[in-house]
Amino acid sequence: MSSSLGTLFRISTWGESHGPGVGVVIDGCPPSIPLTVEDIQAELDRRRPGQSKIVTPRKEDDKAEILSGVIDGLTLGTPIGIFVRNTDQRPSAYTEMQQAYRPSHADYTYDAKYGVRAVSGGGRSSARETIGRVAAGAIALKVLQHSLSGYEALAYVKTVQNIHAEVPTGAALNSAVIESNIVRTCDPVAAEKMITLIEKIRSEGNSVGGVIECVVRGVPPGLGEPAFDRLEADLGKAMLSLPATKGFEIGSGFAGTTMTGLEHNDEFYMDGKIVRTRTNRSGGVQGGISNGEEIIFRVAFKPTATVLREQKTVTNTGEDTTLSARGRHDPCVLPRAVPMVEAMVHLVVADHFLRQRALRG
Amino acid sequence: MSSSLGTLFRISTWGESHGPGVGVVIDGCPPSIPLTVEDIQAELDRRRPGQSKIVTPRKEDDKAEILSGVIDGLTLGTPIGIFVRNTDQRPSAYTEMQQAYRPSHADYTYDAKYGVRAVSGGGRSSARETIGRVAAGAIALKVLQHSLSGYEALAYVKTVQNIHAEVPTGAALNSAVIESNIVRTCDPVAAEKMITLIEKIRSEGNSVGGVIECVVRGVPPGLGEPAFDRLEADLGKAMLSLPATKGFEIGSGFAGTTMTGLEHNDEFYMDGKIVRTRTNRSGGVQGGISNGEEIIFRVAFKPTATVLREQKTVTNTGEDTTLSARGRHDPCVLPRAVPMVEAMVHLVVADHFLRQRALRG
Amino acid sequence: MSSSLGTLFRISTWGESHGPGVGVVIDGCPPSIPLTVEDIQAELDRRRPGQSKIVTPRKEDDKAEILSGVIDGLTLGTPIGIFVRNTDQRPSAYTEMQQAYRPSHADYTYDAKYGVRAVSGGGRSSARETIGRVAAGAIALKVLQHSLSGYEALAYVKTVQNIHAEVPTGAALNSAVIESNIVRTCDPVAAEKMITLIEKIRSEGNSVGGVIECVVRGVPPGLGEPAFDRLEADLGKAMLSLPATKGFEIGSGFAGTTMTGLEHNDEFYMDGKIVRTRTNRSGGVQGGISNGEEIIFRVAFKPTATVLREQKTVTNTGEDTTLSARGRHDPCVLPRAVPMVEAMVHLVVADHFLRQRALRG
Amino acid sequence: MSSSLGTLFRISTWGESHGPGVGVVIDGCPPSIPLTVEDIQAELDRRRPGQSKIVTPRKEDDKAEILSGVIDGLTLGTPIGIFVRNTDQRPSAYTEMQQAYRPSHADYTYDAKYGVRAVSGGGRSSARETIGRVAAGAIALKVLQHSLSGYEALAYVKTVQNIHAEVPTGAALNSAVIESNIVRTCDPVAAEKMITLIEKIRSEGNSVGGVIECVVRGVPPGLGEPAFDRLEADLGKAMLSLPATKGFEIGSGFAGTTMTGLEHNDEFYMDGKIVRTRTNRSGGVQGGISNGEEIIFRVAFKPTATVLREQKTVTNTGEDTTLSARGRHDPCVLPRAVPMVEAMVHLVVADHFLRQRALRG
Repeated sequence: MSSSLGTLFRISTWGESHGPGVGVVIDGCPPSIPLTVEDIQAELDRRRPGQSKIVTPRKEDDKAEILSGVIDGLTLGTPIGIFVRNTDQRPSAYTEMQQAYRPSHADYTYDAKYGVRAVSGGGRSSARETIGRVAAGAIALKVLQHSLSGYEALAYVKTVQNIHAEVPTGAALNSAVIESNIVRTCDPVAAEKMITLIEKIRSEGNSVGGVIECVVRGVPPGLGEPAFDRLEADLGKAMLSLPATKGFEIGSGFAGTTMTGLEHNDEFYMDGKIVRTRTNRSGGVQGGISNGEEIIFRVAFKPTATVLREQKTVTNTGEDTTLSARGRHDPCVLPRAVPMVEAMVHLVVADHFLRQRALRG
Repeated sequence: MSSSLGTLFRISTWGESHGPGVGVVIDGCPPSIPLTVEDIQAELDRRRPGQSKIVTPRKEDDKAEILSGVIDGLTLGTPIGIFVRNTDQRPSAYTEMQQAYRPSHADYTYDAKYGVRAVSGGGRSSARETIGRVAAGAIALKVLQHSLSGYEALAYVKTVQNIHAEVPTGAALNSAVIESNIVRTCDPVAAEKMITLIEKIRSEGNSVGGVIECVVRGVPPGLGEPAFDRLEADLGKAMLSLPATKGFEIGSGFAGTTMTGLEHNDEFYMDGKIVRTRTNRSGGVQGGISNGEEIIFRVAFKPTATVLREQKTVTNTGEDTTLSARGRHDPCVLPRAVPMVEAMVHLVVADHFLRQRALRG
Repeated sequence: MSSSLGTLFRISTWGESHGPGVGVVIDGCPPSIPLTVEDIQAELDRRRPGQSKIVTPRKEDDKAEILSGVIDGLTLGTPIGIFVRNTDQRPSAYTEMQQAYRPSHADYTYDAKYGVRAVSGGGRSSARETIGRVAAGAIALKVLQHSLSGYEALAYVKTVQNIHAEVPTGAALNSAVIESNIVRTCDPVAAEKMITLIEKIRSEGNSVGGVIECVVRGVPPGLGEPAFDRLEADLGKAMLSLPATKGFEIGSGFAGTTMTGLEHNDEFYMDGKIVRTRTNRSGGVQGGISNGEEIIFRVAFKPTATVLREQKTVTNTGEDTTLSARGRHDPCVLPRAVPMVEAMVHLVVADHFLRQRALRG
Repeated sequence: MSSSLGTLFRISTWGESHGPGVGVVIDGCPPSIPLTVEDIQAELDRRRPGQSKIVTPRKEDDKAEILSGVIDGLTLGTPIGIFVRNTDQRPSAYTEMQQAYRPSHADYTYDAKYGVRAVSGGGRSSARETIGRVAAGAIALKVLQHSLSGYEALAYVKTVQNIHAEVPTGAALNSAVIESNIVRTCDPVAAEKMITLIEKIRSEGNSVGGVIECVVRGVPPGLGEPAFDRLEADLGKAMLSLPATKGFEIGSGFAGTTMTGLEHNDEFYMDGKIVRTRTNRSGGVQGGISNGEEIIFRVAFKPTATVLREQKTVTNTGEDTTLSARGRHDPCVLPRAVPMVEAMVHLVVADHFLRQRALRG
């Protein structure tokens, strides 16, 4: 439970950052979906450490192995097991941290929860746990593409600290422009400023946060449930389950709270035979259910908790102390979080797609 | 599934706004918890329509009946059924809406999802569905108070449109101050301005939104799970499952994205034998698990979709039309949403409290 | 959880035998299924007390009220709430039992589990809890009949104590022959002997058990899951969750353990374009998945625990005592259990039908 | 879902018999439970092929690797991943079977369910899937032993075809006597006859079935739920989810249906301060909840479907054919099923133990 997500397209992740490896089991994937290990590897490579100068230099190949559920390039309908072996374990670098709780990390809360300190360097709270999500998301994407023409989720860095990207509209917003820069923003001009900022922050041993926005296209009307499992509620949970997230908003979000109802409402009109809305303050979801418009939401990522500077803290034996983290760190998690956000979208949408198929046939 | 929430303290709501009534079944409530119908009624009265001049005048007594699971003022450990009969049904007032999709309501998406239009006036998408949540939340509160001394959740209106409340700290923030005004804000001065605004907006047939903030006290360290069922993820889902919500943020939230890691990190210190943090940008949750500090989060509520003005829309047979809603409406949902937010907190915390008790005994 | 069953077609029952009433919430029922309260009432009447001279004379009308999820004779796709008010409560008749644990009832185990004795006369352990199951089963049947032509489940009493019914084959086994006698057996000759036995046993204040067999027709190949949620495993759980059951077997069952593999295997042959088996020792399920043959299974029901004779037992304060039950009792539960068995079949098959529809479309 | 079991102590198995390997993820295991790979390996060795002359000679080392969730001999409270690599894959031996459906195997039903034939030789329907269950069961056993003194589950072969074992009572029934013979029966005299029979049957290319009985000791009163998740219902489901099972009965079982209530009821008496029953026809469970007596149940295993003789069948293209299985086979699955039965008991009891701990603290 603690490590599972989804009702019909259901994933269970496992693994610590410093054990033999991490992985995921995907249960409920329909049969006969084309799937290769390369489909998975391509997404893992986007979240991999060491991929550019602005992310952690930790060296992990993150090579996925499919252990079950796929033969001859087709899913079998049975559970798909994915395994990624850890290769760059340096437990020794974390010795001091075994005594001192790192500020704004999960060290203290893990102790409080489990009574045993998970292996230092993160354990399950490490971003490394997200490997299983990204691998599973790549499979969910294949399922959705198999059934929904035009489905895609495009996440991009919208802000880093106070640097804002311009977001192009329509076809100009595409994966090519996002992948054209190592920040994964949709604005090449802002990208340069962001890179400069991140490098400066890294050189100071500090870190920065920002906002990722995501546009999901090709979701048909009717996905989502009216009460608890609203599409935006499940998307929100999925995003807030990613490490370092502090907020989620859909459509007009917090800014929409200053509008009046007359200004905020999305008028319907007929576009041929299709019901459309003139504006999209709803963000593609009304009453918890997709309306066929683009789903658009934003996720707040705090600055990385790991900073290479002396900080005050306490030890696990209850004494005040100071801690100067060494180790390697991501000065800004956002570039690597972009594929995580997309993966979580795929997982949520695939689950609701199957749920709706069960309901209506 | 679509109408259930929780793993161990699990609720299932049912009922439409214009059928015989609405209700909830609570499964997993521990035995021997003191519980009376008055405990439940008190919370229902806080969310009831017609309670003040700034909410909808719809007249519903919302009288709760306990149908099972409680005898002689004690829970039995068996499912608790709660039933609230609908009394003020006026289906005739909604005739026109049966053809025209109300902008930013769930009319169109329900059609898309179910292929049958739920009875007009809302069906499951109505705020009336939240009666079951508030009733169940009152029970969850009793469970938590029975085991956790000092547990309380205080929600209050922080903003209405552009009017901001001052938030007192410590003991000055309490339920008495919040309940001292009909907006349920924590700032009596701002309350007057908010009431004036809401009355003006109502007289214009328009609506406004705002932000509710919630402080949760007395949650012990260790609640929440590290991967998907993070405490903030489950809180976020719970809030985003409330009608009219567009965003959720915890601790520093979106504003925290402009800080550096050094500024943002919460330093630990010893307060006697207790591990505390100097600041609370984490909002009481680190790595998905409570750290014993106050949990603090905010929820964005859009302006009510129902406005008593002519709007362009389409019919369910695909023709452009205009719609002038009559019926009754809430010009601002926030005063009545305050007990809903608190109820959802109780449900999430009670569930995680039982999960942790299972894990550690 | 404790009171819910099913993954997609999911029911939650609630209610005690001596509170205001009992009920059920059905979540996940597809929309636009024709459904009237009479569909439900017809099945409740088959399980009702007082329906014939061989069942308990307890007088309960068991009138179902649909509280939600159905309008104008069609399901909405939203949760369906069903409520049956208790009318014949005689708590006074049970006073003595509040102190003495009735042998082979749940009195002692309820005390051990909950620490509070549920109201005497049964609480959740009462057969009265099955009202919700039978009501929900009637709805599941409508769902299945809507999509699967020829679907039906025929349960019948196969044995009462040592009296065995002859089971006709093919079209001769039908609901008319089963309903032609008050025992609900498929053999009118055996029926007379069974009735005579039950009346004699009742006059002695004693009780008898027996075996119910069930044939399910019209289940397409492919329902069921290969690992834990095997069709026979879910059927077995469903049956063993009925009060007074002690065993379940499918196809060849326990008798099949004395055959060799060569004797036991079901050879395949082509019946036109349809794959069939010559024999049906598999009972319609192979590897956990339906194969299109009739599903056939048997359920063992112990003699009713309530006997109107003096028995030795202990009190809830730990003293040896004797107990002479008064109250009313069923000398043999099987006639009323027949519709319960059928209801549980419908619930399990409907759930797996929706699961397969999610998987394959 | 299809491959997961349990609410709090929850396992998900994955893997095909002819892919890279099989495994399991255990989620919800409490922290600080002593656990070594040897604990797991010992149970796997009991279910391993090739362990004696009466089981399949298929050579698999079945070496377990713990991939996560355990450090320094203690569980972390995080998901435990277990992996067993396949070593003896001979897909070529199964070529013909890729066209012909093996009688009473899952070949045809898999085709019907998934539309793709899982790799020949079994896929998920292979007994190899049970490796994950046995490994997880070994962990559940550690959890139970950690909290419940005297907990043990003793399964043993009660019958092979028509050969019945005498079952000793009390301390004379123990694991030593069961493990003293390769059939894993509790009666050394019967063991010889069973071995002789199995060897004869094997030499004929045929197979036999039988009954496994299991006694569970040290389960405290109060485990199990009153409605659907009754302890016997969950045990029944767990057993009926094992390959080759056709029936389950608890306590008096099917034989109890011929007794009267007066004969069948278990009278209570005080054994010091403990409530006990004179007889145990209930099999340790009353009203779905354990009563502190020994839990005793029986499981029917059909004769293995694989026989090395010519059988009539059809091809997956709809033509009548004959099939002479070659490959290796178990002439009798019962000796290897004994540890599977025990593992399923541990899984069910551990789950209900944690559920009860959540309910009562």
